[in-house]
Amino acid sequence: MSELRWDPIVDNWVVIVKARGRRPADFITERKRIESVVCPFCYGHEEKTPAEVYAWRPDASPPNQPGWRVRVIPNKFPILRIEGQLEFHGEGLYDVMNGIGAHEVIIETPDHMRHPADLRAGELADVFRAFRSRLIDLRRDKRFRHIVIYKNHGREAGATIPHNHSLLLALPIIPPQMRTSLQACRDYFHQKKRCLMCDLLAQELADGRRLVRVDSEFAVFAPFASRHPFSLRIVPRRHSHDFSLLTDHMLTALGETMHDVLGRLRTVLRDPPFNLVLHNAPSALPRAGRPDCWGSLSCDYHWYFELAPKIMEPAGFEWGTGFFINPTPPEDAARYLREALV
Amino acid sequence: MSELRWDPIVDNWVVIVKARGRRPADFITERKRIESVVCPFCYGHEEKTPAEVYAWRPDASPPNQPGWRVRVIPNKFPILRIEGQLEFHGEGLYDVMNGIGAHEVIIETPDHMRHPADLRAGELADVFRAFRSRLIDLRRDKRFRHIVIYKNHGREAGATIPHNHSLLLALPIIPPQMRTSLQACRDYFHQKKRCLMCDLLAQELADGRRLVRVDSEFAVFAPFASRHPFSLRIVPRRHSHDFSLLTDHMLTALGETMHDVLGRLRTVLRDPPFNLVLHNAPSALPRAGRPDCWGSLSCDYHWYFELAPKIMEPAGFEWGTGFFINPTPPEDAARYLREALV
Repeated sequence: MSELRWDPIVDNWVVIVKARGRRPADFITERKRIESVVCPFCYGHEEKTPAEVYAWRPDASPPNQPGWRVRVIPNKFPILRIEGQLEFHGEGLYDVMNGIGAHEVIIETPDHMRHPADLRAGELADVFRAFRSRLIDLRRDKRFRHIVIYKNHGREAGATIPHNHSLLLALPIIPPQMRTSLQACRDYFHQKKRCLMCDLLAQELADGRRLVRVDSEFAVFAPFASRHPFSLRIVPRRHSHDFSLLTDHMLTALGETMHDVLGRLRTVLRDPPFNLVLHNAPSALPRAGRPDCWGSLSCDYHWYFELAPKIMEPAGFEWGTGFFINPTPPEDAARYLREALV
Repeated sequence: MSELRWDPIVDNWVVIVKARGRRPADFITERKRIESVVCPFCYGHEEKTPAEVYAWRPDASPPNQPGWRVRVIPNKFPILRIEGQLEFHGEGLYDVMNGIGAHEVIIETPDHMRHPADLRAGELADVFRAFRSRLIDLRRDKRFRHIVIYKNHGREAGATIPHNHSLLLALPIIPPQMRTSLQACRDYFHQKKRCLMCDLLAQELADGRRLVRVDSEFAVFAPFASRHPFSLRIVPRRHSHDFSLLTDHMLTALGETMHDVLGRLRTVLRDPPFNLVLHNAPSALPRAGRPDCWGSLSCDYHWYFELAPKIMEPAGFEWGTGFFINPTPPEDAARYLREALV
């Protein structure tokens, strides 16, 4: 037995397999290891990386040497480069832009062996403070349309260095899934004069079957039409389109929520590889006529984190269509995660 | 050095890494094996599968026993079921449909060990004849909006049974990437009164840098904004929105093209896992008011195959945004494939 479910936030259908849904034990396989060489993210190796653009140094130590707790550096092998003007030209039917953007690394701890779920809530709050600072800084750059912050944990999720870090990519375009989602949220807002995610959150809180955790500031739930088994949304309960508007109080609350949820995921799925993606409203720079332009402050959007263990290989069908088959109903996933002893 | 490229057919931006692009040898790793048990797709095991819905039996042998060359059966573990009426209801903000659809297996050869690239052109033509027959049959079913035919070759590409086969999924919705692509093709047609793919094909044939192979009926090229390294489009040179309109002559030509291209891919990337997806115009059944409805015959669409080796793990960034980074320029990929000795 299966059913098709539609998610209004991302405007997408998903197949949810309901009978004989897969349980956590079905996803536990041997994890790939990442070959460890001399780690450029450890204390004492600061000169192996480009100069830091941000650091949290409670001891007020000088830049580019030990003493930091969180450190942000430009990626040594960036896929987009920060230097230069944005240039745009056509090649017949095609459009081309030069590869301008920012590609940064947020090193979340000096401790090479520290698992994301082992960072304390306060340490995670410091990491999110770094996110906020980099968003505020990079938004000033008029070349960038959108900033994505994401984390690859484990080899299967795309990590190549084991030392705990996140990545930031500032893009001159708005990626397609974000474009679709912005449109869906905007259409709803225009129709209802209410935020789609706020309404959805109210429904999830009232229903409760897909909730994993809720406190006064954040709610965590398995989306009704989850594309991946055990994927979660971490959503601020008060409406906000922009992560960089988070107060210090909210950063602390987010640290607590994230610490709790990462611990649950590690327990239930035995340290799964995972990806974490921050879905935030794009930088607001109208540029008329481009298909990727988004002309307003996007206050009708509501930011959230998507946390998804990478425990299934997507097959040809899924990448070829964007249509996913999820073998674990989100109601079951949420129950396993709720009941986990952390 | 990298650049951003936009593909009008799928309305998507991609990052192409141009300097130090990855070469075929960079993608050659040990392939995962598929555990072989008693194979339900071999001669003599016909009773292990549901009864066939199509078979090519040149010896006119009776159904569900040996003698077939191509055999199509319902999937024993379908993700969508053929029985029942389509039911649709809301759950607050969400939409739900029961899991109605068709999920079939096209067994391409009776020979368990036969690699896709080892099927002769004529044998592949027989496989495509089966595709055509199933499309024609399933289109009559008014419950289905779209039919996807795809192939997973190799464990990393999602195959679970090593015996050479393709899969068919008839869906009650139009998947998101197809919806975007249909809209892009339609918008272009409305503006220009010409087919977007026809124009794009003319540009690729004139340019030549991304061409892998061309004959009087089909062209094969690496898309200008390929999402994946070494991915290819196999496109009929004469406009057609619907695979099921292929003549026998065209089936033969398609068999020749596919045989040649699969051989090149196997040579250059040493038998890579791959996915093949048929992008065909949806079944034309207007159903007003649904977000997935597509109300016309979609003659402005132009069908094609997408062939993509699965040689890179997509990272968090890519699944979280739909925005891909391709480390091999399609011009290089096409050159390697053109120069391959088959």
